[in-house]
Amino acid sequence: MPLPQTNFSPPFNITRASHIVLGVRDLKVSRTFYTEVIGLVVTYETDDDLYLRGVEESCHHSLILHKTSGQPVCEAVGYRVFQDTDLDCAEAYFKSAGIETCWIERPYQGRTLALRDAVRIPIEFCATMPRLPRLHDKPHLQRGAAALRYDHVQCLAPDVAEAGRFYTDLGFRVSDYFVDRPDDEEPLGMFMFRKNNPHDIVFITRPGPQMHHFGYVVGDVQHLFRALDTAGAIGFENSLERGPGRHGQGHAFYVYFRDPDGHRVEILPPPIQMIDLDDEPARWHSGNRFTWDLPPPKKWLHEATPFKDTPVREPKVEIKLYSLEEHLSGSK
Amino acid sequence: MPLPQTNFSPPFNITRASHIVLGVRDLKVSRTFYTEVIGLVVTYETDDDLYLRGVEESCHHSLILHKTSGQPVCEAVGYRVFQDTDLDCAEAYFKSAGIETCWIERPYQGRTLALRDAVRIPIEFCATMPRLPRLHDKPHLQRGAAALRYDHVQCLAPDVAEAGRFYTDLGFRVSDYFVDRPDDEEPLGMFMFRKNNPHDIVFITRPGPQMHHFGYVVGDVQHLFRALDTAGAIGFENSLERGPGRHGQGHAFYVYFRDPDGHRVEILPPPIQMIDLDDEPARWHSGNRFTWDLPPPKKWLHEATPFKDTPVREPKVEIKLYSLEEHLSGSK
Amino acid sequence: MPLPQTNFSPPFNITRASHIVLGVRDLKVSRTFYTEVIGLVVTYETDDDLYLRGVEESCHHSLILHKTSGQPVCEAVGYRVFQDTDLDCAEAYFKSAGIETCWIERPYQGRTLALRDAVRIPIEFCATMPRLPRLHDKPHLQRGAAALRYDHVQCLAPDVAEAGRFYTDLGFRVSDYFVDRPDDEEPLGMFMFRKNNPHDIVFITRPGPQMHHFGYVVGDVQHLFRALDTAGAIGFENSLERGPGRHGQGHAFYVYFRDPDGHRVEILPPPIQMIDLDDEPARWHSGNRFTWDLPPPKKWLHEATPFKDTPVREPKVEIKLYSLEEHLSGSK
Amino acid sequence: MPLPQTNFSPPFNITRASHIVLGVRDLKVSRTFYTEVIGLVVTYETDDDLYLRGVEESCHHSLILHKTSGQPVCEAVGYRVFQDTDLDCAEAYFKSAGIETCWIERPYQGRTLALRDAVRIPIEFCATMPRLPRLHDKPHLQRGAAALRYDHVQCLAPDVAEAGRFYTDLGFRVSDYFVDRPDDEEPLGMFMFRKNNPHDIVFITRPGPQMHHFGYVVGDVQHLFRALDTAGAIGFENSLERGPGRHGQGHAFYVYFRDPDGHRVEILPPPIQMIDLDDEPARWHSGNRFTWDLPPPKKWLHEATPFKDTPVREPKVEIKLYSLEEHLSGSK
Repeated sequence: MPLPQTNFSPPFNITRASHIVLGVRDLKVSRTFYTEVIGLVVTYETDDDLYLRGVEESCHHSLILHKTSGQPVCEAVGYRVFQDTDLDCAEAYFKSAGIETCWIERPYQGRTLALRDAVRIPIEFCATMPRLPRLHDKPHLQRGAAALRYDHVQCLAPDVAEAGRFYTDLGFRVSDYFVDRPDDEEPLGMFMFRKNNPHDIVFITRPGPQMHHFGYVVGDVQHLFRALDTAGAIGFENSLERGPGRHGQGHAFYVYFRDPDGHRVEILPPPIQMIDLDDEPARWHSGNRFTWDLPPPKKWLHEATPFKDTPVREPKVEIKLYSLEEHLSGSK
Repeated sequence: MPLPQTNFSPPFNITRASHIVLGVRDLKVSRTFYTEVIGLVVTYETDDDLYLRGVEESCHHSLILHKTSGQPVCEAVGYRVFQDTDLDCAEAYFKSAGIETCWIERPYQGRTLALRDAVRIPIEFCATMPRLPRLHDKPHLQRGAAALRYDHVQCLAPDVAEAGRFYTDLGFRVSDYFVDRPDDEEPLGMFMFRKNNPHDIVFITRPGPQMHHFGYVVGDVQHLFRALDTAGAIGFENSLERGPGRHGQGHAFYVYFRDPDGHRVEILPPPIQMIDLDDEPARWHSGNRFTWDLPPPKKWLHEATPFKDTPVREPKVEIKLYSLEEHLSGSK
Repeated sequence: MPLPQTNFSPPFNITRASHIVLGVRDLKVSRTFYTEVIGLVVTYETDDDLYLRGVEESCHHSLILHKTSGQPVCEAVGYRVFQDTDLDCAEAYFKSAGIETCWIERPYQGRTLALRDAVRIPIEFCATMPRLPRLHDKPHLQRGAAALRYDHVQCLAPDVAEAGRFYTDLGFRVSDYFVDRPDDEEPLGMFMFRKNNPHDIVFITRPGPQMHHFGYVVGDVQHLFRALDTAGAIGFENSLERGPGRHGQGHAFYVYFRDPDGHRVEILPPPIQMIDLDDEPARWHSGNRFTWDLPPPKKWLHEATPFKDTPVREPKVEIKLYSLEEHLSGSK
Repeated sequence: MPLPQTNFSPPFNITRASHIVLGVRDLKVSRTFYTEVIGLVVTYETDDDLYLRGVEESCHHSLILHKTSGQPVCEAVGYRVFQDTDLDCAEAYFKSAGIETCWIERPYQGRTLALRDAVRIPIEFCATMPRLPRLHDKPHLQRGAAALRYDHVQCLAPDVAEAGRFYTDLGFRVSDYFVDRPDDEEPLGMFMFRKNNPHDIVFITRPGPQMHHFGYVVGDVQHLFRALDTAGAIGFENSLERGPGRHGQGHAFYVYFRDPDGHRVEILPPPIQMIDLDDEPARWHSGNRFTWDLPPPKKWLHEATPFKDTPVREPKVEIKLYSLEEHLSGSK
């Protein structure tokens, strides 16, 4: 299946990746990790829930942690629409497409429309949240990476093109995609965006759907090290999984952590801006990627967070992944 | 006059501030300043013209320098529209509004529609430029500030609300504005945006229209100093006018240079992201601004670049400006 | 008088500028300034005294603040000697030189020998302090500039060569000095060092002796802005006096603050290393200084902290100083 | 064997690690690597030799590359003494100790005394080099990491205590050492210094002597990434071996490269200052190290550059080393 094409007159106006909802087993230890290492700020908290936002965010939350006694799953992936009326357009659109939706209650969030996307990822849309003061220029209130703002989510999908077409139909553009061999058509990884940078959601081919990681933008590379030094100093010395490194597409630098429940969170300095229609999807394959950094370890390649009540399917295409383990053993 | 209100169903889709066209007296010295200090890359060059872009930009140019034997003026301020058809919608819109337009030829730029805005600033719209490789991750090809991308232009206007309403009618939103006294209505400065940050065009009340400065985003605060050290080392030791400092609105840090013709150029690390409708215009006055930095020198307050063939009118409102000179003399 | 010559077989081994003792009127506000903006750590505290150290320092203190109801003066400038026996050699040396010394008690400091140098600055020497853990790699315990370590003190002196010869006799080397006109002999400013960078003590010609400023090294230029943003956010928005800028000798970047009592404190990223004997004193004059930054304001040029019970003499040589005020008014 | 004790009245005054001499097979490719990635500056060059210095260095060279057709070895490790007369004291001292010395000719270096240390490492001492302008504040002349200055060399030694005692007898102090188990006496790694930071020479227990790596100080963490991005962009994408990371002792961050001949070079931001006698040797073992970073790959642990004409002996103590490979496979 070839690369899906963007619908430039989408049925409603999605503006950006907005938030993510995760289950965690111990709210207290997760709170310490996300406030002290990643540097998020708590905006609402009960015995069972924790709402956090990045220090630059004026919206109420971008990360919701729910206490769970079961397996820690990803409960929902959230997007913002521009105006409240966009939600009604969304409901009508999905109805006409035969996709079931429901209105859910989410504290400190305006009307919220929930549904499952084409690969059964639970997603939700809202238009408003209470507004809070930005704290990006208040270093005395910042901790660790002082994560500025939620940026994107990366998911594993059994069929990347199928997963992606759901979003291109909603107006998402493809910034980059990769194929296995230089003359392949089938996209095996796709970076998709609505806001002015290369990624709001990313899909890569693997058993799925699963939540691979979500990413927060930090101020600069110094903040990658502030997070790492803090992690080492306060008991999260095993949380670094990969990095610091530079993404193969050149978008940004990165560090990947595993949080206390194994959820993977990325921090990255501001990525490139992407707006113009001239910026057609870039096509990557094994022959044209920029690769000073070491390959990812096997667990980065294969481990991920399940979505709530969501069976995992085997991928349509099997590809050979090159791991750090193979790199170290000298096998190419 | 109160703050103009954004038209959320604009007649065509402007995506961002795109480029600026300046007259300079000595192309060679300007070339050195913009490539070595600001760090732009030359993409096209004749005996009379120089086209430059930031290292992250995939578009052909964001700064055009024209050799002039007369006074160095600003010839045009450019904006991008999303699709080529937006240009036709623009033409129709301005025609119906009684505003004269013309199609002009600009090398390495698609169809270009030129006109004057409500305060007689010469502006132009285009949808496409040839695409070139981004160089943001190639430090061996970078110089000075390694300016990433063109960000915004700030203009002086005799009537800020009048100037601004032209743009709110085109869908620009107001991120911030300032008034003289806490209970005033009249906006004396307005930051307006289309892309996902607080400024594509800024107006402040003064004799105008004049071009006060244009700004490029740089990677981080280190790059402010790389520019300054380079300026000092290669003969532009008098080019620093103001900074490094932090903007009163907290958007970003800044350094202001005067180029060899006196045109003012700002470099700034990535500013905050602004997308959500919740982010209503912030209102600033003398009582609520964040001010660790020193006030601007008188020449920053009063000197600017004229627009080509454009008479300057006195401002509608006279306000008291607080200068570095007054700060140093101890008068408040 | 020409540049004094270093005694390479000094009578005892001074290793570095070590600490400074200042009077302050309100310990609480000074505590906030030095811990939150400069980022020092409190190691000992009573109702009348505050002992602080930089986050990289393993020594007990480098700044002592004494509560005073009178004029806030500088009570002493401290140096470290290498071994305890160096103190006895020092006592013998000063006795033979006809300089009065006394042993004083200073909490959390080994034996301490106090005296006045050639221009009547109260100085003291000690060999030991209790050792505490370094915190430079613990960002979760850091604030503001997270000042790493005390670096140097700059004093005004009526006769720079006379002031300096006292220290060259003790083994200090001159890294840089400046003269008025290119062919002058008389040093009007001298940077002197024992440790491996260009400055432990600096003298410049003015009415003196007075304490002009003391300096702490910070991690990098980011930390200059962390200090400034913090100052602006917590009520010290008027504490910035000069900078950020680059020193004319190229040693380092700088920011100068005035603390709540008017004492001037500099923060600077790590300066250059200076060890080899090949590095003969560099000679600066108006014709060879590197000057992208703006000249200092008059108060930086003329205001300073008196030393306790120490009359101020007029300088031997009157020189013309170029101020920011003159720069802004266009007079050279 | 317990930790060797520093002789505080050494026979002559060594000031710092000064330079290193390496054989390389292709001068042109090595030149590109060291000038473009590491950012050294060429100061002298023939068909067979390349002399380079860091951008902050005023000395003529700190790295000498010799073209070789054989195995690329380390030919010599150089130290600076303070004064020329120190060289005569050195000669007399080694003679009395029964250690053979000779005076060698090394272009652009004063009198040079060569010998082998206690573990047969070829070392040399000199007091002077021609002085050249520092370029640390000239970003327009800098490339890649813009390495500021040579900092230290790390060697593998079959008997760390024996290797180290040679240097403690010459006045080197131990900043840190590590032992296998918490109650061990035998040092298995020793960081030793003369200048004001923790390392001029480091020994670790392995088959030796071999040259493990040499290190250059860079301005800040940004420069780690400038080097890496440059390496990736110009054909050295496989040169990264380890990092970016933070040293277990907390001294500094690091990146380790393998140069085109496999010589290992480290770049590190400015490490901590170490001067006072209070800073007694810190003792590290498996139970008290700071470890957010991943363990080193096996090749970092076991591969090194041989010294010229120098047989390698098996280590006195065999220790278990924990590698990245074991970490990834989950074995502790």
